[in-house]
Amino acid sequence: MSTAVTNIGELVTWEEGRPLRHAAAFVVDAGRVAWVGDAARVPAADEVLDAGGAAVIPGFVDSHTHLVFAGDRATEFEARMAGRRYSAGGIRSTVAATRAAGTDALAALLASRVAELRRQGTTTLETKSGYCLDVAGEERSLRLARDVTGETTFLGAHVVPEGWDPDAYVELVTGEMLAACAPHARWIDVFCETGAFGADQARTVLAAGVAAGLLPRIHANQLGFGPGVQLACELGAAAADHCTFLSDADVAALADTGVVAGLLPGVEFSTRQPYPDARRLLEAGVRVAIATDCNPGSSFTSSMPFCIALAVRELGMTPLEALHAGTQGGAWSLRREDVGHLRVGARADFVVLDAPSHLHLSYRPGVPLVGRVLRAGRPA
Amino acid sequence: MSTAVTNIGELVTWEEGRPLRHAAAFVVDAGRVAWVGDAARVPAADEVLDAGGAAVIPGFVDSHTHLVFAGDRATEFEARMAGRRYSAGGIRSTVAATRAAGTDALAALLASRVAELRRQGTTTLETKSGYCLDVAGEERSLRLARDVTGETTFLGAHVVPEGWDPDAYVELVTGEMLAACAPHARWIDVFCETGAFGADQARTVLAAGVAAGLLPRIHANQLGFGPGVQLACELGAAAADHCTFLSDADVAALADTGVVAGLLPGVEFSTRQPYPDARRLLEAGVRVAIATDCNPGSSFTSSMPFCIALAVRELGMTPLEALHAGTQGGAWSLRREDVGHLRVGARADFVVLDAPSHLHLSYRPGVPLVGRVLRAGRPA
Repeated sequence: MSTAVTNIGELVTWEEGRPLRHAAAFVVDAGRVAWVGDAARVPAADEVLDAGGAAVIPGFVDSHTHLVFAGDRATEFEARMAGRRYSAGGIRSTVAATRAAGTDALAALLASRVAELRRQGTTTLETKSGYCLDVAGEERSLRLARDVTGETTFLGAHVVPEGWDPDAYVELVTGEMLAACAPHARWIDVFCETGAFGADQARTVLAAGVAAGLLPRIHANQLGFGPGVQLACELGAAAADHCTFLSDADVAALADTGVVAGLLPGVEFSTRQPYPDARRLLEAGVRVAIATDCNPGSSFTSSMPFCIALAVRELGMTPLEALHAGTQGGAWSLRREDVGHLRVGARADFVVLDAPSHLHLSYRPGVPLVGRVLRAGRPA
Repeated sequence: MSTAVTNIGELVTWEEGRPLRHAAAFVVDAGRVAWVGDAARVPAADEVLDAGGAAVIPGFVDSHTHLVFAGDRATEFEARMAGRRYSAGGIRSTVAATRAAGTDALAALLASRVAELRRQGTTTLETKSGYCLDVAGEERSLRLARDVTGETTFLGAHVVPEGWDPDAYVELVTGEMLAACAPHARWIDVFCETGAFGADQARTVLAAGVAAGLLPRIHANQLGFGPGVQLACELGAAAADHCTFLSDADVAALADTGVVAGLLPGVEFSTRQPYPDARRLLEAGVRVAIATDCNPGSSFTSSMPFCIALAVRELGMTPLEALHAGTQGGAWSLRREDVGHLRVGARADFVVLDAPSHLHLSYRPGVPLVGRVLRAGRPA
């Protein structure tokens, strides 16, 4: 069954030297992009999808989310916005609610969040454990995550749980917990930050994950300057996410190693922290991804279009660079060659916008502009 | 036909001393709120609307939009975000496109924008002329606007059109143009700003409108300090919109006169200008409205939830204050007692959120959380 997608106002493919086309069409066959070219020369196909003059873009690749959790921290957000200290426990309240949740209830919450992302045009998503911080709970989170995405990340080393000695907890994470979780995960991650895990602990966690067959990625340099980005570069991690506080040496190391800088501007929006500087990274030749970091504490947005609009307003990106970072950049971050673009061979993951151009994603902030969402050529 | 709305997670009514209720229900009869009270004591009704545990809020009142236009200025936005000067004419390009548009085409554009606002929970909207700047065009714009809302504003004095002497244009606006437009408008407006109309010209325009039976409102103090807010207070205008640059005397005058300060944070988001300070206004006792200013040049968002999220992040409002400004505040701005709240007697304009609390409008920025939208008790 092949489908010709026609009457496209603007087609974003990320083809080399030609990121977008006008008067173009493409053909989907067996869930893949089989042909891209001038609309006037589109080959015959079994059916036609008329885009009605709208822009067609690759489906978003959200390379950083935390969707497996229970509970709500809206009142913590409210207190933070009012400048009040909030004593109800922050991440600990999410850990308590997630541990206490029944498996079916947790699966239902996860499924509703995945559906929410899909409706907003996200066709590939990464998601993590990290809200149970015990062996059975982390394993359960990853089993559930694996049912909704291939991009699952073991983040037992999210924070040190209450009552634990940090080194003893690292031993648990790299021992029994890793053994239970590795079969359900593709990635190993650690939150390397003052108050979470230091450089040596983070190196221990990532090295153990790699030894267990996982690929490394890291939360780094979110709240201040620190060793996380350099560690990511030293270990050849796929991505260093946050990258808000970077030294010149950090930027140079990212550029030299090709480690993807994952920028998560929803966090800065929802915490009133300073935004990362995407312009500086792009000009240094760093590969940049934009993701939502969807989580109940610091960024409960699931909207890639919103994060793209923020990237333009606050991070110094052009609308095309921001869209690239939310599609091709996310695919780089996840080391995926089949998604994030619409070149021949890609999985046919695409969004028909309710707009004539990708510019509208930032020109019309907050407006739901995601029309049809297709994944492997089928309605997502 | 009466409807009991039940199983509400949180009900925002703006009742005196009790802005929101839990374990509450309300009854709609003949399109009005007929009863509000404890869920356990809800009177019998012909049918039940089960809110599924979600929050119910008044429909948004968008007190400032410019929806009657043709053309697109996405590339101007792109250039501005890149820090480049854009020479393709700004508002003049919208004027040219709107003048050239066929009436049916212009009506269709307007209808699609109104539908977009409705889907996002806006149940009352103001909209203006101001993109033709000639007698027939301004009149046509207002005839079209009147078909979609009772809140129509004559803004012939938007800018001085190319080739006109400013005083001669004011004479046209207050003479022949006003005579043609007044029958289709409720409001008279003027853009009082350096580069548009000065204080004396603005006073002349508003006074002429008032003499023709229109009610005054004003665009003021957007790009710098200026006389617009004081003029609004002197004339007893309903609202002074923008209010980004205010002296202490301006703030005091707004508080003393009850003129509503309309804040339009989508403009500052899309132009990288400094945001207005809502906290200062609220603490001085000024009545505040939040609106989108939806227009193709400086703020092409139509999303009240997005503007509410910005008001919390950038303007120093609490989530409840921001929601109030986007509902009750908008109603004050339009001098409407029947909308913007859900007290007994209100028109039954309400939104069932896909969320348990109004907090989620800012806690989950960019996420489409507007579920069902009802206007006078019927699907909007």
